[in-house]
Amino acid sequence: MIVAVYQGPSPDGDIAAAFEAIARMLAAAAAAGARLVVFPELYLPGYNHAGIPVLAQSAGGAWERRLADLARTAGCALAIGLAERDGDVLRNTALVFDGTGRELARYRKVQLYGPREQALFVPGDRLCLFDLDGIRCGLMICYDVEFAPLVRANAAAGAALLIVPTANPVPFHHVPRLTVPAQAVNHGVIIAYANLCGPEGDLVYSGGSCIVGPDGAMLASAGPGAALLIADLAPAFAVPAAMRSTQLADLRPLTPEG
Amino acid sequence: MIVAVYQGPSPDGDIAAAFEAIARMLAAAAAAGARLVVFPELYLPGYNHAGIPVLAQSAGGAWERRLADLARTAGCALAIGLAERDGDVLRNTALVFDGTGRELARYRKVQLYGPREQALFVPGDRLCLFDLDGIRCGLMICYDVEFAPLVRANAAAGAALLIVPTANPVPFHHVPRLTVPAQAVNHGVIIAYANLCGPEGDLVYSGGSCIVGPDGAMLASAGPGAALLIADLAPAFAVPAAMRSTQLADLRPLTPEG
Repeated sequence: MIVAVYQGPSPDGDIAAAFEAIARMLAAAAAAGARLVVFPELYLPGYNHAGIPVLAQSAGGAWERRLADLARTAGCALAIGLAERDGDVLRNTALVFDGTGRELARYRKVQLYGPREQALFVPGDRLCLFDLDGIRCGLMICYDVEFAPLVRANAAAGAALLIVPTANPVPFHHVPRLTVPAQAVNHGVIIAYANLCGPEGDLVYSGGSCIVGPDGAMLASAGPGAALLIADLAPAFAVPAAMRSTQLADLRPLTPEG
Repeated sequence: MIVAVYQGPSPDGDIAAAFEAIARMLAAAAAAGARLVVFPELYLPGYNHAGIPVLAQSAGGAWERRLADLARTAGCALAIGLAERDGDVLRNTALVFDGTGRELARYRKVQLYGPREQALFVPGDRLCLFDLDGIRCGLMICYDVEFAPLVRANAAAGAALLIVPTANPVPFHHVPRLTVPAQAVNHGVIIAYANLCGPEGDLVYSGGSCIVGPDGAMLASAGPGAALLIADLAPAFAVPAAMRSTQLADLRPLTPEG
């Protein structure tokens, strides 16, 4: 299975530019054989855009219908983060549409990061697993993937591939460079991590998007600038059992103190 | 300027498969905005293919005409390695066609590697520089880029971007991981290094293709498997002067001993 991650600047409220990039990158990746393209967190309307409360759309809204159309047109699945209105509250949501335009997955970020996100959004409280081309996938967003218990829970639920839209700013370069590959190795999963790059308001995103295997080998990784990475997951699925994490089976219970 | 490198298995004599991959990757990269796609060394007919002496074609032959057509069709330049018949001898050659199908550059590998290459080919003896989209480029092949004097000569001749088709096998993982970024930093150039992956005869190629800037930052890099990397060179051109190599100006003459 060939998977792509797109790293680009945040649309910062320019919805037309966002959809233009989504359509172009989907078409390009599909032409190279990709079955899935992962876009960044809150790509609609832009992670750090002030208009999120006004622009957020309910499930089934115009953004989602257009995303479904684009996936169907490209014949390629897409995963993307967007601001979702959920009744009276906002969610930091990620969606997956398959290559026929069908909604495969809807996930609400559990681990909201910092005061701004925590003021804007209500966190989700459940995992999101689904099958794509016969591969069990888990959907997470940004800060979520830094929590070993969450990654472990996805692995325990059978996820082989974790799909992670993100908006990781500088100076947190260690997240794509170190945390993400370490989670892949420790929990025996493939991680496709799609970040933003460049400035948006008071943030500069760190780039470093990557596709990393359960042996920690980067199948593809980006630097600080815009990039489309398209990689065959075959080497990750071929990692021998002896190189794969045994933590899932081996964790021993601790006796509480006292 | 957006540049792509393609990493895939060697065609190993399957010319139809090679052209299918070239056409598909050119179209995909062009759709994402790429102005150049770099393919591996001796991609036609395959680096380690036994039939090189029989299959090698003269300048202007059918392979080259088809490559020019593909570049023109995609509206995107391509750089590729192929086996060239040059009168009575064979050359390990790299060509560049621009997005109109015009031949921009023809380079014969200077530093042939090991007994097999040295028995098959006659080495070239000159640099190859050219302009693409206003950027001064130098063309090298594989082992060439490991020689600091050759990289320095390209930098001294004004090259900002070194284009390097390669066929680097295991266990020489240090070349893309260490040697190539070190040459980029030491000589203040961008390097686009396109390798093969997987087995061909008695070789297994190391992958690790990359696009690296003059500060050593990887703009994109691949792992052990097939990948198409498409990256904007903007961050590499934005590296501040204080971070760029001053070796070109600073090298001091040595007094010979004795």
